[in-house]
Amino acid sequence: MNTFGERFRFTSFGESHGPAIGGVIDGLPSGLHIDEEAIRVELSRRSHPVVRLEDGRIYPLPGGSSRAADEPDQVEWLSGQVDGVTIGTPLAFLIKNTHARASDYDAYRDVFRPGHADYTYFVKYGIRDYRGGGRASARETAARVVAGSIAKQLLTQRGITINAELTQIGKTTDPARFADEIQHAQADGDSIGGIISCRISGVEAGVGEPIFDKLQARLAYAMLSINACKGFEYGSGFAGVQKRGSEINAFSGGMLGGITDGTDIVFSCVFKPTPSIALPQMAKDIEGNLRQISIHGRHDACVAARAVPVVEAMAAITLVDYLL
Amino acid sequence: MNTFGERFRFTSFGESHGPAIGGVIDGLPSGLHIDEEAIRVELSRRSHPVVRLEDGRIYPLPGGSSRAADEPDQVEWLSGQVDGVTIGTPLAFLIKNTHARASDYDAYRDVFRPGHADYTYFVKYGIRDYRGGGRASARETAARVVAGSIAKQLLTQRGITINAELTQIGKTTDPARFADEIQHAQADGDSIGGIISCRISGVEAGVGEPIFDKLQARLAYAMLSINACKGFEYGSGFAGVQKRGSEINAFSGGMLGGITDGTDIVFSCVFKPTPSIALPQMAKDIEGNLRQISIHGRHDACVAARAVPVVEAMAAITLVDYLL
Amino acid sequence: MNTFGERFRFTSFGESHGPAIGGVIDGLPSGLHIDEEAIRVELSRRSHPVVRLEDGRIYPLPGGSSRAADEPDQVEWLSGQVDGVTIGTPLAFLIKNTHARASDYDAYRDVFRPGHADYTYFVKYGIRDYRGGGRASARETAARVVAGSIAKQLLTQRGITINAELTQIGKTTDPARFADEIQHAQADGDSIGGIISCRISGVEAGVGEPIFDKLQARLAYAMLSINACKGFEYGSGFAGVQKRGSEINAFSGGMLGGITDGTDIVFSCVFKPTPSIALPQMAKDIEGNLRQISIHGRHDACVAARAVPVVEAMAAITLVDYLL
Amino acid sequence: MNTFGERFRFTSFGESHGPAIGGVIDGLPSGLHIDEEAIRVELSRRSHPVVRLEDGRIYPLPGGSSRAADEPDQVEWLSGQVDGVTIGTPLAFLIKNTHARASDYDAYRDVFRPGHADYTYFVKYGIRDYRGGGRASARETAARVVAGSIAKQLLTQRGITINAELTQIGKTTDPARFADEIQHAQADGDSIGGIISCRISGVEAGVGEPIFDKLQARLAYAMLSINACKGFEYGSGFAGVQKRGSEINAFSGGMLGGITDGTDIVFSCVFKPTPSIALPQMAKDIEGNLRQISIHGRHDACVAARAVPVVEAMAAITLVDYLL
Repeated sequence: MNTFGERFRFTSFGESHGPAIGGVIDGLPSGLHIDEEAIRVELSRRSHPVVRLEDGRIYPLPGGSSRAADEPDQVEWLSGQVDGVTIGTPLAFLIKNTHARASDYDAYRDVFRPGHADYTYFVKYGIRDYRGGGRASARETAARVVAGSIAKQLLTQRGITINAELTQIGKTTDPARFADEIQHAQADGDSIGGIISCRISGVEAGVGEPIFDKLQARLAYAMLSINACKGFEYGSGFAGVQKRGSEINAFSGGMLGGITDGTDIVFSCVFKPTPSIALPQMAKDIEGNLRQISIHGRHDACVAARAVPVVEAMAAITLVDYLL
Repeated sequence: MNTFGERFRFTSFGESHGPAIGGVIDGLPSGLHIDEEAIRVELSRRSHPVVRLEDGRIYPLPGGSSRAADEPDQVEWLSGQVDGVTIGTPLAFLIKNTHARASDYDAYRDVFRPGHADYTYFVKYGIRDYRGGGRASARETAARVVAGSIAKQLLTQRGITINAELTQIGKTTDPARFADEIQHAQADGDSIGGIISCRISGVEAGVGEPIFDKLQARLAYAMLSINACKGFEYGSGFAGVQKRGSEINAFSGGMLGGITDGTDIVFSCVFKPTPSIALPQMAKDIEGNLRQISIHGRHDACVAARAVPVVEAMAAITLVDYLL
Repeated sequence: MNTFGERFRFTSFGESHGPAIGGVIDGLPSGLHIDEEAIRVELSRRSHPVVRLEDGRIYPLPGGSSRAADEPDQVEWLSGQVDGVTIGTPLAFLIKNTHARASDYDAYRDVFRPGHADYTYFVKYGIRDYRGGGRASARETAARVVAGSIAKQLLTQRGITINAELTQIGKTTDPARFADEIQHAQADGDSIGGIISCRISGVEAGVGEPIFDKLQARLAYAMLSINACKGFEYGSGFAGVQKRGSEINAFSGGMLGGITDGTDIVFSCVFKPTPSIALPQMAKDIEGNLRQISIHGRHDACVAARAVPVVEAMAAITLVDYLL
Repeated sequence: MNTFGERFRFTSFGESHGPAIGGVIDGLPSGLHIDEEAIRVELSRRSHPVVRLEDGRIYPLPGGSSRAADEPDQVEWLSGQVDGVTIGTPLAFLIKNTHARASDYDAYRDVFRPGHADYTYFVKYGIRDYRGGGRASARETAARVVAGSIAKQLLTQRGITINAELTQIGKTTDPARFADEIQHAQADGDSIGGIISCRISGVEAGVGEPIFDKLQARLAYAMLSINACKGFEYGSGFAGVQKRGSEINAFSGGMLGGITDGTDIVFSCVFKPTPSIALPQMAKDIEGNLRQISIHGRHDACVAARAVPVVEAMAAITLVDYLL
């Protein structure tokens, strides 16, 4: 359940307020020089999201006050490498939780925050870990970014590149206005959704599986496993409902019958607005009563912004699993 | 690769022009009375799709000339049941291919039909089975419908119902005009896309898994494994990008953190227009040359119509896998 | 549960008294010419076991009156091949049950035969399929032999050969006396055990996995899945308990740390005497009472004799799974 | 490859001379109070093996100078529990390697020790980690003991007990003489084999799976995955070859057709003598030349002694996987 993949097997562990999060990557070839700098860059894209304008300029997106921004995300290797080179055994790593502040969550100790997994985890496990979502926290995605960064290294060796970017926030598709959209939502005590599009280049034709393990099916599975992701589409996607065959037959999105056709793989996924909002909302408490709550603390108004490197990471882990 | 699920394990086999298609269901409890009539009804929904209007009237959708409509789809049981009752061993079945007409495909013997898996299978397997898509044919979904029908029986015992329906064809969301949309496309020698929405009722809170095997992730994986499906969304879906947290926190789509919250599970998926169209289009042949082709034969103009029971089947198989 | 392997995935189905037994092989490369004659030879080794003496002479072992000897075992292909050549899709096959005589088992309708799975299946599935063991019958191994024969073809292409033979029956290790041993047991209304040794040649060093999926662990798993097998050993085996390191370090049995070392893989497995014996024995009936029974019918006195090609088949399926 | 089990999924990581070994247990129910004292006791049985005589007296077995005896094996929890109670998320732990002395292995830097996995790992991974076996070291089994101890807690809740013990060392089956056997071998600069027998009590009838995932098959797989294990037998075992059906039908070893019958599960496994011996032996070096070596350092003369809690651990992990 906490393992992804068949050949490149990534097992994730850790809660947001426990000692550490981390992972074990099994199936990694020996002899890979781990690019620690690349991992740091990816982790930094998650903690300090930016947007690149058409003219090449880069500017930061709001999110500076959140825990992700404060946490240094230092990776410690437990096994699987000697002097930075993999030896074919499981690569285990951890990232200590240094900025966990359980007290932030005291106010929600006995209430189920709407739109969060508080209630569903409680029903499933019978335990109420009120401290910031525990395992359901987006903090877990930092471990995915580490694993994804290593998967990317393997893909780079094969000439494959993965690039995801925000293509819509709220109603706007103009990157120059993304920061404004987020700030408006935040100023209103509210939050806003986003769409991330991803392009994978350099995959040769013939990669994937027919029937159930279609590459698009595994990509959808990977994306929908990311917190707050509510949808996945590729190629002609949802807009294709209005199209005719004669219009779209030439645009596959890179996969036909579950197998790559040699063109770029192109997909998008949508992220809902952060459910943690300052605006008052009604929530059920542990005794079944409705109560008005207002969620303050270190939250992003637009989770999509941080999810960009996570989308790339999950795409990389998914793809490398077919190629090993 | 041709097996779906962990506990209710469905293995699918068969090509559209071989002796038979079929499947093996492993993990089925003993003592289940197989409802053969229910299976026939589901198979008939696939071969003769209908639409239900708001006033309750039902009318057929175009597709009468296709192979699916002519094929009787007779299920033969090979193992796993005695006198119609399961005994806990693998339930194997086959459906003979009685209406396969390989000659229908003679014209495409050495050309890769655009939008089909002809080229990608050729690259992957090095073999050109030109006869109607072979394994990639939608005929394979008949086996899924059989397995799904049995999964549904298990779900019905738990008070769970699954209902999918066409909610959009082309630009129209009015069921009364679906047949027209299809006929117009067909009359133009073209094809048209469709959206299917599905509602699952009666699932109690606490079903699903966190992190990678989130229920929504498995549902997306299941849907994207269906021929021509190009996207999946649940809850607020893609429209949610324009929403604020305060607007959508109350609408989960039935799952939070990968686990059901006790409300109805609601998702949609989009199907592209059939790539087989009569209008002339350019296609690569086996020698790499471009050639103009025009595809005639027994094809539906809107594959979404036949996919409705397949969506239900895959949803049922996905869900029952968490419940066994 | 009824699937073996990760890359060469063999799913087995069928009961001894249902319409058919069979299997689905998933993961088979395309382009393999199926050697039907080789499959017939392997099936015949199972139905008509022989022993080869040191001087090369071959003579049949007793077992002529059993069902296995009478059943023709005709393989019918359902999918996965065109004109005898695999196409990369699941290879499904069936063998019809033509000689099932349920009436043979009328006497044991409500009694649990000692040493059989009658009781354990009844407890697990709540259903009493008294007709010859149903799914637990050794008839299921015919499907394994088919799959194993195809696995062997893939291994032969890589220069790998697998040879199993009876090395002990009862107290004797002299093949010339095996038939006598069996006949003596049979004449006494009793049965007798046997040991099969297997040698795999031509596997290069470096095949296998460390830790849990050690090749020896997977071989043990494969052998212990065969009916009546009670033990597995390789290399120095059980006799090695009395040995010192200096005596056996040079003899690995072909695997060290789970990975082949380039020498022949050598292992043995032991099969218990058939539990079906004519001698009177006490058995529990379905109401919990003890009753004296005497089992007559088409049974072998030494199941090990028929298991030789099954051991080879399972070894081939196990090994090919590491090599694909 | 480094994960064992389907429901209780144990992933092991770590090399003997890296920073730490450890594991991740996925699928653990929430609400289990982790018995840390029980884990310490199990780890101590591995580091300081003892034998219990028939009169109840306990005396230590030789092995005091080995690394296992010196290493404290302190378990640190990384995730999956709060205040010693599991919360349903992956339970990750590590044990730091405090007594790793790579210099012990300087002499074997470019030689493949006979009977070890040095050569096979080198061929498979292309990397020579000469420092004490790395991942192939028996140190890895400490992580198994931790996971097994937790599995045992779950089994204890169901009234199931697992007891393994040494039943033979060299030629003797008298526990009072085990220490002597080991010391004699050690004094000769040699090593000696051992047999461990295990009894599992309290498992109700009906646990297990037919065909491939037979309980005995999974147990064999589990045992053969332990370092130095060369064979597995249950019930009548290898001795059964000389038996007749009438003699052994009443003794199943606890499993029939892969499923428990309610009697005690009884199996044995054999461990070869440690390949690390002081006596001079010929070994291939990395250039392919034969060289005489004599292995000194912290090695046990009889690895079977330390393997007793490992056998129990793997049995517990195997069994609990069927029961969750």
